[in-house]
Amino acid sequence: MKEIENPIAEAPNIQNQIVDQFIAVRKRTEDICQPLQKEDYVVQPIDDVSPPKWHLAHTTWFFETFFLSEILPEYQKFDPDFNYLFNSYYESVGKRVLRTDRGNITRPGVDKIYAYRKYVDEHIVKALREETASQQLLEIIQLGLQHEMQHQELLLTDIKYILGHNPIFPVYDANCEIDRIPVNSNTDFIAVDQGIYEIGFHGSGFSFDNEWNRHKVYLHDFEISSQPVTFGEYIDFVEDGGYKNFKFWHSDGWAWVNQNKIAAPMFMYEQNGTWFRYTLSGYKPINPNDTLMHISFYEASAYAAWKDCRLPTEYEWEAASDLFAWGNCWEWTNSAYLPYPGFKTAAGAIGEYNGKFMINQMVLRGGSKASFTGHSRNSYRNFFHPHLQWQYAGLRLAK
Amino acid sequence: MKEIENPIAEAPNIQNQIVDQFIAVRKRTEDICQPLQKEDYVVQPIDDVSPPKWHLAHTTWFFETFFLSEILPEYQKFDPDFNYLFNSYYESVGKRVLRTDRGNITRPGVDKIYAYRKYVDEHIVKALREETASQQLLEIIQLGLQHEMQHQELLLTDIKYILGHNPIFPVYDANCEIDRIPVNSNTDFIAVDQGIYEIGFHGSGFSFDNEWNRHKVYLHDFEISSQPVTFGEYIDFVEDGGYKNFKFWHSDGWAWVNQNKIAAPMFMYEQNGTWFRYTLSGYKPINPNDTLMHISFYEASAYAAWKDCRLPTEYEWEAASDLFAWGNCWEWTNSAYLPYPGFKTAAGAIGEYNGKFMINQMVLRGGSKASFTGHSRNSYRNFFHPHLQWQYAGLRLAK
Amino acid sequence: MKEIENPIAEAPNIQNQIVDQFIAVRKRTEDICQPLQKEDYVVQPIDDVSPPKWHLAHTTWFFETFFLSEILPEYQKFDPDFNYLFNSYYESVGKRVLRTDRGNITRPGVDKIYAYRKYVDEHIVKALREETASQQLLEIIQLGLQHEMQHQELLLTDIKYILGHNPIFPVYDANCEIDRIPVNSNTDFIAVDQGIYEIGFHGSGFSFDNEWNRHKVYLHDFEISSQPVTFGEYIDFVEDGGYKNFKFWHSDGWAWVNQNKIAAPMFMYEQNGTWFRYTLSGYKPINPNDTLMHISFYEASAYAAWKDCRLPTEYEWEAASDLFAWGNCWEWTNSAYLPYPGFKTAAGAIGEYNGKFMINQMVLRGGSKASFTGHSRNSYRNFFHPHLQWQYAGLRLAK
Amino acid sequence: MKEIENPIAEAPNIQNQIVDQFIAVRKRTEDICQPLQKEDYVVQPIDDVSPPKWHLAHTTWFFETFFLSEILPEYQKFDPDFNYLFNSYYESVGKRVLRTDRGNITRPGVDKIYAYRKYVDEHIVKALREETASQQLLEIIQLGLQHEMQHQELLLTDIKYILGHNPIFPVYDANCEIDRIPVNSNTDFIAVDQGIYEIGFHGSGFSFDNEWNRHKVYLHDFEISSQPVTFGEYIDFVEDGGYKNFKFWHSDGWAWVNQNKIAAPMFMYEQNGTWFRYTLSGYKPINPNDTLMHISFYEASAYAAWKDCRLPTEYEWEAASDLFAWGNCWEWTNSAYLPYPGFKTAAGAIGEYNGKFMINQMVLRGGSKASFTGHSRNSYRNFFHPHLQWQYAGLRLAK
Repeated sequence: MKEIENPIAEAPNIQNQIVDQFIAVRKRTEDICQPLQKEDYVVQPIDDVSPPKWHLAHTTWFFETFFLSEILPEYQKFDPDFNYLFNSYYESVGKRVLRTDRGNITRPGVDKIYAYRKYVDEHIVKALREETASQQLLEIIQLGLQHEMQHQELLLTDIKYILGHNPIFPVYDANCEIDRIPVNSNTDFIAVDQGIYEIGFHGSGFSFDNEWNRHKVYLHDFEISSQPVTFGEYIDFVEDGGYKNFKFWHSDGWAWVNQNKIAAPMFMYEQNGTWFRYTLSGYKPINPNDTLMHISFYEASAYAAWKDCRLPTEYEWEAASDLFAWGNCWEWTNSAYLPYPGFKTAAGAIGEYNGKFMINQMVLRGGSKASFTGHSRNSYRNFFHPHLQWQYAGLRLAK
Repeated sequence: MKEIENPIAEAPNIQNQIVDQFIAVRKRTEDICQPLQKEDYVVQPIDDVSPPKWHLAHTTWFFETFFLSEILPEYQKFDPDFNYLFNSYYESVGKRVLRTDRGNITRPGVDKIYAYRKYVDEHIVKALREETASQQLLEIIQLGLQHEMQHQELLLTDIKYILGHNPIFPVYDANCEIDRIPVNSNTDFIAVDQGIYEIGFHGSGFSFDNEWNRHKVYLHDFEISSQPVTFGEYIDFVEDGGYKNFKFWHSDGWAWVNQNKIAAPMFMYEQNGTWFRYTLSGYKPINPNDTLMHISFYEASAYAAWKDCRLPTEYEWEAASDLFAWGNCWEWTNSAYLPYPGFKTAAGAIGEYNGKFMINQMVLRGGSKASFTGHSRNSYRNFFHPHLQWQYAGLRLAK
Repeated sequence: MKEIENPIAEAPNIQNQIVDQFIAVRKRTEDICQPLQKEDYVVQPIDDVSPPKWHLAHTTWFFETFFLSEILPEYQKFDPDFNYLFNSYYESVGKRVLRTDRGNITRPGVDKIYAYRKYVDEHIVKALREETASQQLLEIIQLGLQHEMQHQELLLTDIKYILGHNPIFPVYDANCEIDRIPVNSNTDFIAVDQGIYEIGFHGSGFSFDNEWNRHKVYLHDFEISSQPVTFGEYIDFVEDGGYKNFKFWHSDGWAWVNQNKIAAPMFMYEQNGTWFRYTLSGYKPINPNDTLMHISFYEASAYAAWKDCRLPTEYEWEAASDLFAWGNCWEWTNSAYLPYPGFKTAAGAIGEYNGKFMINQMVLRGGSKASFTGHSRNSYRNFFHPHLQWQYAGLRLAK
Repeated sequence: MKEIENPIAEAPNIQNQIVDQFIAVRKRTEDICQPLQKEDYVVQPIDDVSPPKWHLAHTTWFFETFFLSEILPEYQKFDPDFNYLFNSYYESVGKRVLRTDRGNITRPGVDKIYAYRKYVDEHIVKALREETASQQLLEIIQLGLQHEMQHQELLLTDIKYILGHNPIFPVYDANCEIDRIPVNSNTDFIAVDQGIYEIGFHGSGFSFDNEWNRHKVYLHDFEISSQPVTFGEYIDFVEDGGYKNFKFWHSDGWAWVNQNKIAAPMFMYEQNGTWFRYTLSGYKPINPNDTLMHISFYEASAYAAWKDCRLPTEYEWEAASDLFAWGNCWEWTNSAYLPYPGFKTAAGAIGEYNGKFMINQMVLRGGSKASFTGHSRNSYRNFFHPHLQWQYAGLRLAK
């Protein structure tokens, strides 16, 4: 595997900078939960949606397990049961609560979870200020913060799922705008020439192992849209019978539509000829210029077929990404989530982070307004199973 | 249908007495929830177990819908959404939240539910003190209180399920003894002669329509045990391979054992040769003299077969019930839950109370320590599907 | 258990009579299959429907296992694999092919199964002619023949299911009338007085253990219809919205209707305002005077509720059975299939015949034209799960 | 879409050559079925396995629908129901029998299906001899023959599944060797240099639309094994606990192993320390030098991880394919089945052939001995869902 540059090692006084970033990231997680009632923290309405309480604890468990237990030999765990309760999928680290059971665990309660966060945070800040951490342990902190940023986005999608599936549609925050992002200008197609392109992370700063190795790909001529698709454009597809005509759909997508009686993106409802959607700021009429989100890969692909276009590959997307604005929503690509040339999983539990998910999922590129500022980059590879709708996921056309 | 005596009508000053009973029953429901954290109120780990919050609201909805809206023409409902959210299975009263979705509804929160209870209680107490209620409406109050007593028992079984399926086994109340009831004397079989017996409710006081009409049955000679089966006796069955030998089991029971890998009653665990169980007062070694509970009908029947005995019918149980002590646990009988001669469902939503469940369920007789004092009687017909274990249900042998 | 009269023991030359009966019963099974193509013998479209080939082999296996292997010490089994393949549910007799897998077993082929029948039949006829069988073994022959008569009826229902679910609706036999039985006279209600009645098998001839012991029951005054319900009468219920109004249905029945989108009895279809049904003689317009069949218990019970009547209990049915004609169809009763007083299962595999099914099933009384002549009697207790429609099952009203 | 060379148009007397090929391909399908009994033709033990009868009819339906009905205006269909019964997944061509119901359809019987084949074949041969077919219609014949060759392989895998899941393990053909292919030489890794490679079909002869457009890819240095993996090599993985260690598996693969209790490839059994497998020539001890087959993608990938290698991508495989022998089995690659640059679906039903399956499936390259001679080529893209084992699928290592 090629040598990855370590941004941490290059900065003087790096641990103090990390403390600041640590505090900021950890605080944002709690800020996201501030509008919640205790009851909202507990439930898991579908397997994919975890209880907010679990996100709070699991991100904390990551730091406790992979950093504190390593750097402080005498460290006392906050609670010995928590490894069992809040491990997610790190098979290396011990028996874990099955993902589908997360929503049945009412204790420890929310207050205890916040106490857990406080306890771990204090130990970490103290350790970062007083101990000399190895570069490897500082990278764990970085990974933990990136991990927490990912969970911040999941917290927001999961909170939206929980409140948005309550028949009384509670408002999360009347001023929240992360899921109402207008697209202002007109759409053009940008032409890109064929040739060899370099794909994958380069430069300084953090990156995940799934962005490595930077490598060459040969792309043929293509065109890509300057804008993501809007709700208004997508409603045209719906009203043209898009969900009733198999010819726009993959075979698996058509089965998904029919078995689940899908007739629109998640959170979208037609009432007496007007389209509404549930947003984090409440149930509202749809603004047609808003960036489309909450669609599955199947829907993204069917919409593209209806437009006589296609989805870009992740390579096309990345190669062209300096030529358009992105970040309104995650954008489904027509690339499966597979390893880059030279990809190797790290040893131990950290190695389980990305590689073992490299099957059955499709890559999304870009980023959403739910993401922590600066969390995404044009080499970032997000990935989900193709039927999932609950993410802030939309699309951009290619041809 | 025969004329049912109305105990209410016979008492002078009956409404004041009902107020006292109303306050006492409503208070006990809240007392049961006193040890809970807010998080415990929300979840529904399996379809059969409802969130405690839901029980609190649903029992209140019953009084609001069937009494307050009738007696007070100007009554303002606490919240118009609550009919939709907290109706259980009264198809007549409007669209309802599917039973399997109850555990996804985090709002309204617990505080609002308690405010709902307070609002409805104040209106009812005031109405009972100031308005003259018809006999029919007083019977609704009686039915509502009996309904709430039934939900008190379900609250306790559901709380036990929720806490008892948390891997850290939280204690509900260290002093709670309702699921630890020792049997003190020795077991005898009591002989009963054949002949015609009268079965069904008689006398004064409340009874459910499923206890009517009192009618004649012919019973042949039988013997019935003076005591319910204990944990110690049942452990002999388990350790003799009772769960591994099809010949003790019904065909459906054997399939249930194998498909669900059942090896013991719910909440019971073997560790290094010692048997433990989760009780509302915590996870503890089993006292062999305690009354067995948390078994399914299939297990009750298999145990009886292993003892070369059988379960009594509900008629035998009732005919003999003055000859033995009962009330440690609900006791599975070998009678299906079916109507008595002359049974008629009442018109309207109240008529949905019992009759529509008269298929696929088996009758349990007796009562448990979780029941409100005086709630049960020897003609009371409890009923559950034969595979369910989460009730305080055991058995008494017959032959 | 009370002493059962043995009809076999009382007849002189009994073994010769049994030979004649044996040959007649075995022949009828093959006659039933005569219209089939080899392809029809193999499939199992749902768990409840067994492949015709399997019925042919399983009934033969019964005689081979319980009679030939007992009476002839030197008997060579036709094929040692057949015990594994064609045991149904006798857990005592060895590992068996799971019921849901019966439809995947293409070998042994149909010709080999007929050779198996011939081989076993020849050995049995020879043994009955040459050996002196104990009374117990002669009872096994009797039980085997009754068992085969039961499978003859299942053969016909299973063949009807297989052909009737083929989109091209093949005709089984253009002249077959067993599922087209007109009711000729008018319906009356017959009143029966309360009192003690004797229920259960008496007299001579064969009976199953589930008909024992004959015992006393006390019945209250009731009325029972002189006729089963017809298709014409049931169509009135369907067209009155019977399948769309929860109030006629048990709670479990209403769930069954909605989950399975049931809108009519099995094999019944509405086309442009005319009702058709698939019969063994083909797809035809419904004759309204024909006896209704292919309904579940839930439908029977809902129809009765719509008529403001109820189903009779099996005791009422038997007590009144001399007062009306029966035998057009099996008639659902409102009695659960449970043991009579004094019921004991026999030791060994034969004991598995009836007792282990005494849960979750409802009793049907009467008999159908698919039954072997003389197979049924007024104490005969047929039983099925309440959701099943594929039997020749209808109903008779009571009140 | 780029212009595809049409091999048909270039040959003189092309229709006569096509007749010969048509007869040869159609005959091989029937030859494959020659060892079957009629009963074997009917069943569908799992959704993925179609009844042999269905394959015979469906391949015929293809020619009838897309060729005969086009070229002969007066053509009388053999049976109007057959479009409904034997369409597979061409949504454009009318209502079809659900794939999961194929195994319930016993009529039309096998003889009628063979009559259908004869009828269609005679019409086609006559038409090819007497009519002048357009190039487009000749391409339909070509596509139909390629389609039938694909179904020949599926016939063999489906027959193997049906017989191989019968507990008595019937022999298909004692001399059949298509699933017993020894690997004779030693394994080496072949190094391939980085650079731009051309991928996709070129040259003359038939190809599928999923092989187009031929396009450039950039490959980095890699090594690929000269041989596929053998049973002996794979048994080392099994015996080293490969199925019990999550670290070799994708997350979805590990769930698949555990939910389905997978412990070995399909058809492979350990008895007293010896490994056996079911082959088309019977149940036999495993020859360790035989080419491994009947593994899922998950197993292929886990084995490669255990060897500290990986699977090749389909591009690497194709680029290197002249450097090694292939054709013992289909070889799982680490490439998802996705469109090549410039891929377009054809209009109408033929366009449903490939494109709509381009999600959730992984590409296999090579070919098996079950394939028609000359059917495969090094640009051929086979594809299956990653959990499927019933194909003749193995793997080749890369690094």
